Amino acid sequence: MSSLREVAKQANVAVSTVSAALNGTRPVAAATRARIELAAADLGYRPNLLARGLVSKRTGILALLYPAPNRGFGLTEMQFATSAAEAASEAGYHLLLSPEKSDPVAELRHLTGLGLIEGVLLMEVRLDDERVDHLVAAGTPFSMIGRTRQPAGINYADIDFAATARDAVDHIVGLGHRTLAFLNHSPDAYAALYGPTVRCAEEFAVAARDRGVEYVGDLHADSVEQGRAAFERLVTTRPDVTAVAVMNDHAAVGVLGAVADRGWRVPDDLTLLLVLSSVEVARMFHPQLTTLEPPSTELGRLGARMLIDQLQPDAGRTETPRQRLVPCRLVVGESSGPPRRGAETGVPA
Amino acid sequence: MSSLREVAKQANVAVSTVSAALNGTRPVAAATRARIELAAADLGYRPNLLARGLVSKRTGILALLYPAPNRGFGLTEMQFATSAAEAASEAGYHLLLSPEKSDPVAELRHLTGLGLIEGVLLMEVRLDDERVDHLVAAGTPFSMIGRTRQPAGINYADIDFAATARDAVDHIVGLGHRTLAFLNHSPDAYAALYGPTVRCAEEFAVAARDRGVEYVGDLHADSVEQGRAAFERLVTTRPDVTAVAVMNDHAAVGVLGAVADRGWRVPDDLTLLLVLSSVEVARMFHPQLTTLEPPSTELGRLGARMLIDQLQPDAGRTETPRQRLVPCRLVVGESSGPPRRGAETGVPA
Repeated sequence: MSSLREVAKQANVAVSTVSAALNGTRPVAAATRARIELAAADLGYRPNLLARGLVSKRTGILALLYPAPNRGFGLTEMQFATSAAEAASEAGYHLLLSPEKSDPVAELRHLTGLGLIEGVLLMEVRLDDERVDHLVAAGTPFSMIGRTRQPAGINYADIDFAATARDAVDHIVGLGHRTLAFLNHSPDAYAALYGPTVRCAEEFAVAARDRGVEYVGDLHADSVEQGRAAFERLVTTRPDVTAVAVMNDHAAVGVLGAVADRGWRVPDDLTLLLVLSSVEVARMFHPQLTTLEPPSTELGRLGARMLIDQLQPDAGRTETPRQRLVPCRLVVGESSGPPRRGAETGVPA
Repeated sequence: MSSLREVAKQANVAVSTVSAALNGTRPVAAATRARIELAAADLGYRPNLLARGLVSKRTGILALLYPAPNRGFGLTEMQFATSAAEAASEAGYHLLLSPEKSDPVAELRHLTGLGLIEGVLLMEVRLDDERVDHLVAAGTPFSMIGRTRQPAGINYADIDFAATARDAVDHIVGLGHRTLAFLNHSPDAYAALYGPTVRCAEEFAVAARDRGVEYVGDLHADSVEQGRAAFERLVTTRPDVTAVAVMNDHAAVGVLGAVADRGWRVPDDLTLLLVLSSVEVARMFHPQLTTLEPPSTELGRLGARMLIDQLQPDAGRTETPRQRLVPCRLVVGESSGPPRRGAETGVPA
């Protein structure tokens, strides 16, 4: 393996300039940096990352914190993690998969205290989130996939829940529906101020009101059985409802089961939408469900880029925004149709 | 923050002994080590991980390598990753989520060349796997979730495919079936020597033969459409088949669709099993499918422990095996029943 001195010689610069360029300890002109990187690559020079980290505090390591055991680490969360890891890797960074255990703030203190990580990527963000308070107070660079209630000044990439709710309501209104029921996550998720649960509840109500759609929003289900029970209660109390949007995939299975038990069919007797589920999941249903697919890959990449841009403020290589909302994508399946006739009586035509 | 010297004083040992105990640079008697760790905890002493890593080569960082973009990073792979991260965390280690990009061996060289990681955890292992050849040659500690064709001397945790196939065949034989069709992953996965694809193909054939079950094993499907087409071909060529086992979840959706199109019902006219899918996924189906659930959490934890035990040969804290096969768990759903009468004519009774 070659030395710093050989790299300096080949690039025709001082050794201290090579060190500054490779360790990021002081700014180096772009052309000089490029010449040094080329020489280093030519000579197979590879700085010891740990030694570099001791000098510059730049270890190239980011931590992705996630709750464990968790409230369903599904495909969406998986895509956050893998796309963030890929974006980090493209920028020369490494992503630690860091389970939070029982005390997330203690875990954060531990991680940053080790001198190991340069920054933190948060997911499963709550409206009030003690991790955010801690990171702001500690001055640790971080970004969020999701956002708190008041994320002023904090980098985040999150779902545009308002636009997503509008798209969903416009979709059913376009088909002729005048009623919509929304099955949210369990009251526990709401009480925990889990961002998507609270924001969807608010934004679906707003979007329905704005479009003059009658809205039933007090339903919750996070399992097959709860989905079945919620739908059965719905058709008893509000037999006029012709469209249902569901947050939990298993609850949608329960709704479909209850629909079949009544001798109803989707979409002839009921239009059924998934909210925040991937097309991959929507295709598991028969008929394939219409879904509002979360932009998981984009959010994971944005979250990682926003963090890295804080760590490389002078890199000037990207124009990543500091805060970004991305709507879900409406993917129409086989579960969308016009409202059944005679809906007001609760009996399919 | 306290100093090494203060820890040495409180523990009543030499500074060099504290350093040896905390950095693992030479053996320290267990009682002495315990006294030192207690003193360090009391005093809130926290060694700088990077400085420690420079001296001892012990960084406490492991890398989980996975192919990206990948052939379906699903719930099972997610559970490998999160359970490995948790087992690592419990042992004081950190897990990097390392996408392999186009050249996995180059990525391994890069990771180990940085002096950053102590060992590697592999997943998505193929029967012939260049990553394994490289790691063995380089002398890098590693373990596998999955295994190569000849994993002698290499630490691995994998599914016991032979026991899993026997359990599946015993299950349908117990219900009275004498025929079984197996829908495997696509021929591409087979050609790539992806372990589960090849081993399931072999072991299901062996288990069926051993139990005197007529076996149709040349079917492949990795999508809804392919599942539907494969099932339609099956009932045309082999109308006597009464039980079908499916590797790909979406292919199972296609089979169920084709079954419904014929006016058949599950399980009255066909017993349908998922292979290597979680109960979580099986519950997405209506009726809920019987599945052979992979021991994902156990394999992820075992893989991490097997790697850590190599790095701490004298720790003597665990009795983790070096190689371990764990069968899938048969979870009987609503898709298992006795064979339809008149099966030989292909017409439901």
